[in-house]
Amino acid sequence: MISHLVVWLLATSAVYAAFDIRAWKMERKYKEYLNKRAYYIAEEEDRSVGSDIELTAKEQFVNARLMALKEAELQEGLENPAEFIPWNHLFDVLYRINSSEIFDIIHRMPKGGILHAHDTALCSTDYVISLTYEPDLWQCTNPTTLALTFKFSREAPANTENCQWSRTADERTKLGEEKYNSNLRSQLSMYNEDPINHNRDVDSIWRQFMGIFGVNDGLLCYAPVWKKYYKQFLKEMMEDGVQYLELRSTLPPLYDLDGHIYNEEEILQIYQDATREFKQDNPTFIGAKIIYAPVRVVDDEGIPPLMDKVRNLHEKYPNFMAGFDLVGQEDKGRPLIDFSEGIMSLSDSIHFFFHAGETNWDGMTDDNLIDAVLLGTKRIGHGYAILKHPRVLKQVKRDKIAIEVCPVSNQVLRLVADQRNHPGSVLLANKEYPVVISSDDPSFWEAKPLSHDFYMALMGLASRRQGLGLLKQLAINSIKYSAMTPLEKMNAMRLWEAEWKKFIDELAA
Amino acid sequence: MISHLVVWLLATSAVYAAFDIRAWKMERKYKEYLNKRAYYIAEEEDRSVGSDIELTAKEQFVNARLMALKEAELQEGLENPAEFIPWNHLFDVLYRINSSEIFDIIHRMPKGGILHAHDTALCSTDYVISLTYEPDLWQCTNPTTLALTFKFSREAPANTENCQWSRTADERTKLGEEKYNSNLRSQLSMYNEDPINHNRDVDSIWRQFMGIFGVNDGLLCYAPVWKKYYKQFLKEMMEDGVQYLELRSTLPPLYDLDGHIYNEEEILQIYQDATREFKQDNPTFIGAKIIYAPVRVVDDEGIPPLMDKVRNLHEKYPNFMAGFDLVGQEDKGRPLIDFSEGIMSLSDSIHFFFHAGETNWDGMTDDNLIDAVLLGTKRIGHGYAILKHPRVLKQVKRDKIAIEVCPVSNQVLRLVADQRNHPGSVLLANKEYPVVISSDDPSFWEAKPLSHDFYMALMGLASRRQGLGLLKQLAINSIKYSAMTPLEKMNAMRLWEAEWKKFIDELAA
Repeated sequence: MISHLVVWLLATSAVYAAFDIRAWKMERKYKEYLNKRAYYIAEEEDRSVGSDIELTAKEQFVNARLMALKEAELQEGLENPAEFIPWNHLFDVLYRINSSEIFDIIHRMPKGGILHAHDTALCSTDYVISLTYEPDLWQCTNPTTLALTFKFSREAPANTENCQWSRTADERTKLGEEKYNSNLRSQLSMYNEDPINHNRDVDSIWRQFMGIFGVNDGLLCYAPVWKKYYKQFLKEMMEDGVQYLELRSTLPPLYDLDGHIYNEEEILQIYQDATREFKQDNPTFIGAKIIYAPVRVVDDEGIPPLMDKVRNLHEKYPNFMAGFDLVGQEDKGRPLIDFSEGIMSLSDSIHFFFHAGETNWDGMTDDNLIDAVLLGTKRIGHGYAILKHPRVLKQVKRDKIAIEVCPVSNQVLRLVADQRNHPGSVLLANKEYPVVISSDDPSFWEAKPLSHDFYMALMGLASRRQGLGLLKQLAINSIKYSAMTPLEKMNAMRLWEAEWKKFIDELAA
Repeated sequence: MISHLVVWLLATSAVYAAFDIRAWKMERKYKEYLNKRAYYIAEEEDRSVGSDIELTAKEQFVNARLMALKEAELQEGLENPAEFIPWNHLFDVLYRINSSEIFDIIHRMPKGGILHAHDTALCSTDYVISLTYEPDLWQCTNPTTLALTFKFSREAPANTENCQWSRTADERTKLGEEKYNSNLRSQLSMYNEDPINHNRDVDSIWRQFMGIFGVNDGLLCYAPVWKKYYKQFLKEMMEDGVQYLELRSTLPPLYDLDGHIYNEEEILQIYQDATREFKQDNPTFIGAKIIYAPVRVVDDEGIPPLMDKVRNLHEKYPNFMAGFDLVGQEDKGRPLIDFSEGIMSLSDSIHFFFHAGETNWDGMTDDNLIDAVLLGTKRIGHGYAILKHPRVLKQVKRDKIAIEVCPVSNQVLRLVADQRNHPGSVLLANKEYPVVISSDDPSFWEAKPLSHDFYMALMGLASRRQGLGLLKQLAINSIKYSAMTPLEKMNAMRLWEAEWKKFIDELAA
C-alpha cells in the first residue's frame, strides 16, 4: 500500500516536473529570443550614422521632442500612406513641410556647411524677382518657347529674329506687376505645374531645369548682380542655419555696362572679395570656397586648354579654389574617362570633387563612379548609383570619400519618387560610409538653402530610430569632409559648436 | 669651342630626355590607370550574380544575341528615357514586352521554379473567365462597390441585402457575352485603369488587390474548380518554361454542391493528388510543394490553435507541405514578433518561409526582417527593405537565406516605380546574397507565370553587363534554394538541365 503511494507520488511529480521543465525551457528560449532581437536592433542602431554621438542631457530633451514629432508623422503615414510627406513630390507638400514643427526645428538647427550646390541656383525666387527691378534691365521673349532672356544694358541691345528687346520696367508696367511677376516666377523655378505630372522622365525634366539656368543667365551674369546674388545667398544660408559653403561654379563670363567681360580669375576674385566682406559683417560665418566645375560637354581639343585653365586658377587661388569638377546631365555629357588623361596630368595638389553616378543606369553612365575614385576624388557628387558598385563602396569606405547626397534634387530631377527608396537610406544605415547631405539647386525648387534636404534625410531616408544624433553627425560631417585645411576645420568646429550650443539651449528652454 | 658644343649637346639631350621621360611616365601612368579601371570593372562583374557560370560555346552564341538586343534597348533608353520599359509601369508597356525578342527568349528559357506565388492569383485571366462558363454558377453584384461575388450551387443561394443572386449564364445572356466578359475581366486583374494613375498609394492599391481575391473566392474555392485551376496553372507554368512550384496557400475552406466543406488537410490532399496526376502526364515537370500561409490578421487567442494546425498539417504532409508563412499586407497586419513565441514552440523540422520587409518603411514594419532571420526562416518573401538592415544582410549571407525578389509585384503594388531603383538591383550586384526571382500574383497583372519577372530582372535590375549567365544562375538558384530534399534537387537539376540543353540547342541553331 505504502509502496503504491510512493510510486504514485513519484510518477505524478515526475510528470509535473517534466511539464515544468518544458515550460521553463520554452520560457528561457523565448527570453533568449527577445534578448537576441534587442541585440540585433541595437547592433543596427549602433551601425547607423549618428550612433557615435552621445547626446547631452539637454540634447536628449530636444531629441525627445523631435522623436515624438517624428513618430507621430510616421504613425500617421502608416495609417494614410498618401499623407506621408517623403512619399509625395516636394511640390505637393512644400506648404505642409514649411509649416511643420519638425521643419522649424531643422531650420533653426546649425547644420554646418553646404558642400554641393551650384552658384546660379541658390537664392530664393523672391530675391531673384527683386533683381529684375534693377535699372538698365532689358528682356526679350522667345516667340516659340516663351522663355525670357535678360540683359543689362544702357541702351537697347541689338534685336535678332528670336529676340526683340524691351525694357523690363516697361513690360512690367504693360502687363501689370502681379501678372508680370507671376509669369516670371513660373520661369524661375520648377514649381510651376499644377498638378505635378508624375510621369515625366529625366530628359524632359532636365530640359526644364536647364531652361531656368538660361533665364537666370543674363540676369545673374551681370557682374554687379553676380556679387550681390552671392552675398544674398550667404545671408539666406546663414538664416537657414548654415555657416559654410563650397560652391560649384562654371565661372561663366560676366559682363558689365562698359562692355568688360570678366574671366575666370576675375570671377574668383569677386567671390573671394565678397566672401571676405561677408565674413567681416558676420563673425559666425565660417567661410566659403569655390570648386571650379565647367560643363562636361567639351570636345577632345578642348580638354588640354581646360586643364591649363584649372592649373592656372589653382596657382592663383590655391586655397580659395577648393578643386575641380565637371557638371551637366551625366547621362548626356561626356563620361569622366574621356577627361581622365587630362585630369591625371594635373598636380596632386589639385583636389577633385566629381559628380558621379547621378543616374538610374547600371553599367552605363554610372561607370563615372569608378573613374571618380580611381582619379582620387575627395568626394562624390550625388553617387546615386553607388550601391550597385561594390568596388566603389569598398574604396569609399577605405579612403573616406564622402558622398554628397541631395535628396530633394534627386526627387525633383526624377531619379526617385518616394524618398524612402533613395539609396541614401542605405548609406545612412551604415556609418562606415561618409555621407553629407546637400541641396544642389535649392532655388529651382523653392527650398531653403539646406533645411528641406535635412528634413528629407531625417523623415524619408533615415530609420525610425534615427533622430538628433543623426542630424548632429551630418552637420559635423559637412565640416569633416569639407575642403578646409585642418586648421580651418578646427576654427569651423568652434564656430559651429557655439551655434549648436545656442540652438540646444534655446530649444531646451 | 668643342667644349661649348659638348655642353650644348649635353644640355639639349638632357632637355629632350627629361621631356621624353615625363611623357613616357605620363603614358605609363595612364596605362596603369586603364588597367586598374578594367580591373575594377572586372572585379565588380566577378562579384555579380551569374559570374560563376562559365558559358559554353553555344551559350556564348545565345548570349551574344541576347546582349545585342539588351544593348540596343539600353542605348534607346539612354536616348529616350520614357521609352525604356523598366522605367514604365508594367501596364503601360505590357504589349511592348510581349512582342519583344528579348521576352521571347526569356519565355522559352527553362527558368527552374517559382518559389513565391499565391495560389488564387496564378492563372491567365482568359482561363479564369472560361471558368465562369461552368454550370451551376451564380453571382451577385454589390450595389455600392459593383464587385462581383460568385458561388456554385444547384439552386439559387439565399439573397441578402447586398447580394441578390442570379445565374451567371443568364447575366451573360442579358448583358451580351462581350460586355459581360469585359466587365468581368476588369475585376479579375489590376490592369483596368487607363491611363494608369501613377499617384496611388500602397493602401489604395492593396484595397484593389484584395478585392480581386474577393471576386475569385467563390469561383475558385469550389472544390472541383480548385483542382482544375491548380492543374491549369501547372500547365501554363510549364508552357512558360517553369518546371517546379512552391505555392503559398491559406488553405481556405473549399465547398461543393453537396454542402461539404473541405478542411486544410483535405485541400492539401487535393493538391498532392493533382500534383501526382500532373507529374504522370508531364515527365519534365519536377514537382510542387505547398507552404501553408494563413493571413497574418489573427488575435492572440487564435495563435495557439493556428500553431496546432501547422503541427498537424506538418505531421500529415511532412514533405509535400514545405513549411509555414504568414500573408497579407505587412504594414497593416500583425508583425512576426506577435507570433514568435508560438512559432518557437514548433518542431525544428517545420521550415519557415516568412514574408518580411515588403514595405518602404524603415524601423517599422520592416523589423519583421529581424524576426524572420531570428526565427530561422529558410527564405525571405520579398525582403524589399533588406538593404536598410545590415545585420540581416550579414545573416542572409552567412546562412544562405534566399531572398525572393518579385520585381513586377513590387511595382504594381507601388513600392517602387522605376525598376532600376528596385533594391534587387543591389542584390544582383553581389553574388554573396542568395536571390531568387519570383512572380507573387502573376494573374492579377496579366503576366506570364515567371517570364515578366525574369525580364525585369535582366533589363531593369541587372547591370548592363549581366546577361545569360545571370539568368542561368537565377534558374539554378530557384532549385538550389527550394525546399526540395537533396535527392529531389539532384533529380530537379537533371530535369532542368535537359530542358536547358534543348533551349540552347534550339536557339543556337
